[in-house]
Amino acid sequence: MLNIPKIDDLNADIYRESQAHLASLTKPEGSLGRLEKVAAWYAAAKGVFPPPAPYKAAMLVFAADHGVAKEGVSAYPQSVTAAMVANMIAGGAAINALCTRFGIALHLYDVGVAEAIEVEEASHNVSFHDRKISQASGNILKENAMSRRQAEEAIQIGIEAAKRAIDQGALILGIGEMGIGNTTPAASLTAAFTGAKPEAVVGRGTGIDDERLKAKREIVGKILERLPVDMNDPIDVLGAIGGYEFAAMVGVMLEGASKQVPIVLDGFLTNAAALAALAIAPPVRHYLLASHRSVEPGADVALTRLEQAPLFDLGFRLGEGTGATLGIDFVRTAIDVQFKMATFDSAKIDGPA
Amino acid sequence: MLNIPKIDDLNADIYRESQAHLASLTKPEGSLGRLEKVAAWYAAAKGVFPPPAPYKAAMLVFAADHGVAKEGVSAYPQSVTAAMVANMIAGGAAINALCTRFGIALHLYDVGVAEAIEVEEASHNVSFHDRKISQASGNILKENAMSRRQAEEAIQIGIEAAKRAIDQGALILGIGEMGIGNTTPAASLTAAFTGAKPEAVVGRGTGIDDERLKAKREIVGKILERLPVDMNDPIDVLGAIGGYEFAAMVGVMLEGASKQVPIVLDGFLTNAAALAALAIAPPVRHYLLASHRSVEPGADVALTRLEQAPLFDLGFRLGEGTGATLGIDFVRTAIDVQFKMATFDSAKIDGPA
Repeated sequence: MLNIPKIDDLNADIYRESQAHLASLTKPEGSLGRLEKVAAWYAAAKGVFPPPAPYKAAMLVFAADHGVAKEGVSAYPQSVTAAMVANMIAGGAAINALCTRFGIALHLYDVGVAEAIEVEEASHNVSFHDRKISQASGNILKENAMSRRQAEEAIQIGIEAAKRAIDQGALILGIGEMGIGNTTPAASLTAAFTGAKPEAVVGRGTGIDDERLKAKREIVGKILERLPVDMNDPIDVLGAIGGYEFAAMVGVMLEGASKQVPIVLDGFLTNAAALAALAIAPPVRHYLLASHRSVEPGADVALTRLEQAPLFDLGFRLGEGTGATLGIDFVRTAIDVQFKMATFDSAKIDGPA
Repeated sequence: MLNIPKIDDLNADIYRESQAHLASLTKPEGSLGRLEKVAAWYAAAKGVFPPPAPYKAAMLVFAADHGVAKEGVSAYPQSVTAAMVANMIAGGAAINALCTRFGIALHLYDVGVAEAIEVEEASHNVSFHDRKISQASGNILKENAMSRRQAEEAIQIGIEAAKRAIDQGALILGIGEMGIGNTTPAASLTAAFTGAKPEAVVGRGTGIDDERLKAKREIVGKILERLPVDMNDPIDVLGAIGGYEFAAMVGVMLEGASKQVPIVLDGFLTNAAALAALAIAPPVRHYLLASHRSVEPGADVALTRLEQAPLFDLGFRLGEGTGATLGIDFVRTAIDVQFKMATFDSAKIDGPA
């Protein structure tokens, strides 16, 4: 039986202490915009001032396949999921390059990839974990993605993944995913948890044409019709129309938040998973940071519900956690900068006239 | 007599070569958005593929005072310019913290600060250059900011500052400024070079209230009425309603572009200076990268004319080059990532079905 970790609110006293410190620095008050807000948020999430700068960080990437890929919802064949996981193990994917650039430890989990992953020698910055629950989720157009037991198992894998990274010293976590076809469950989850229409949440994913886009919208419409009306059990919803990587990311968010280790979201897939986490444990929201605005239309719908304004809008639509790496590095910058600056007092500078 | 450096167009062949390389990497084509565009742009600016990653970078910050500060256009007293320059020399300003964080050499120039700068020991990452042309520009509400000779001298200082940084190995330059009251000349220059109305270009600067904002709009309106009608000589316009730091930044842009060393813009002040550089030498535009969208309304007006979409929108309104440091680091990320990734061929992964 799954135990949902207990999550506290942010520490309001620490937030105020951090804001007061930021206001004392030699710059017009608030003139570093989001950098200041992120600095105060991170301190409040940690519950300590000054907070430790999150130089030790981990990126948790979950890979799985999707039965619904059969319906032609992706530009790429399903085999690409396993091939990209192998590429990540070998160090050749975008997420590898970004994690190496920013000194972020990459933890890669197979939670439901259709094919067997051929593990040769792993790249220096990657740890691979075979936690395959099944060979792809069910085709959510016709059947549930996961049984209740499988959904809970995937959440538990995410909880344990977060625990492991935190035990190894990570002060902040990023989440990412790999799974051909997974913008379809992401769109379905977003619509289910927000009440948005398929047109508002379905996009081109890795790059489908107009015809496939139209078909994908119809498929998501049918998935939502199939969905049980009772939305009171978000784990059931996740099991019905989600996928293994979504459930695992939910676990990371719940565990990270409960340990006061903030979680940096990546794009649409992680935004959709966050909606499920929010439905399970509303205070989780306080520990999330939206790194970027995906070009997928459903991302805006999800982020609005999450009350998150993304840091960046760079036209990313890759996934893997790529955007989240930039978000993690921005948090470091925010913490670093505020403790290296002089104050108006120490520098003997006049404030506003 | 000022020699305007000759500026070539970007290398279109290199741009295409870079794009082809980006398309071969293991990710959906274009899925890293701005990161890919920046990577191709930087290579084309350098005129070589693969381009050298710009780990060696310099931030050139120019400080000056403004006669128009007497008119109550700023929230801060004029003395803050000299105090902040001293703070930068001592290493306590936001730009110090950011340059240290990102390993960017900081070159600080006094080109027209009213007060004498007290130079104690400079912080390890800062070089200070006393090139004071005058003790503040003229009050542009009533008189010209600079004589023709002074404006040319300031441009020349910028040219030499860029030369020095490039000689020391900088592969990319950032520009920034410090000068109480300088959003008023920035707004005036932006209106003059684009034809925009004062309402569209005047903002709150470091944080003035509604009453001062109204007065500032009226002042900019009067400055524009005073301006000679002949806009054909942009250096005259710069001399009439600009300021020393603007002219120096123009010099950096002209010299950097002529040496194929891209220049990363900061906020509104640098955007306004770029309009003057564009009027002097239109091809300079190709070598500029707008790092962020300032909250000053005139920034959008200037960036539109410059045909620049800023990378970030983080609510920054500090200046000093702070936003440009993030832009420089993003260029490094773009170059770094594209040469650490596997290709579809090397990783034996299928492309789109």
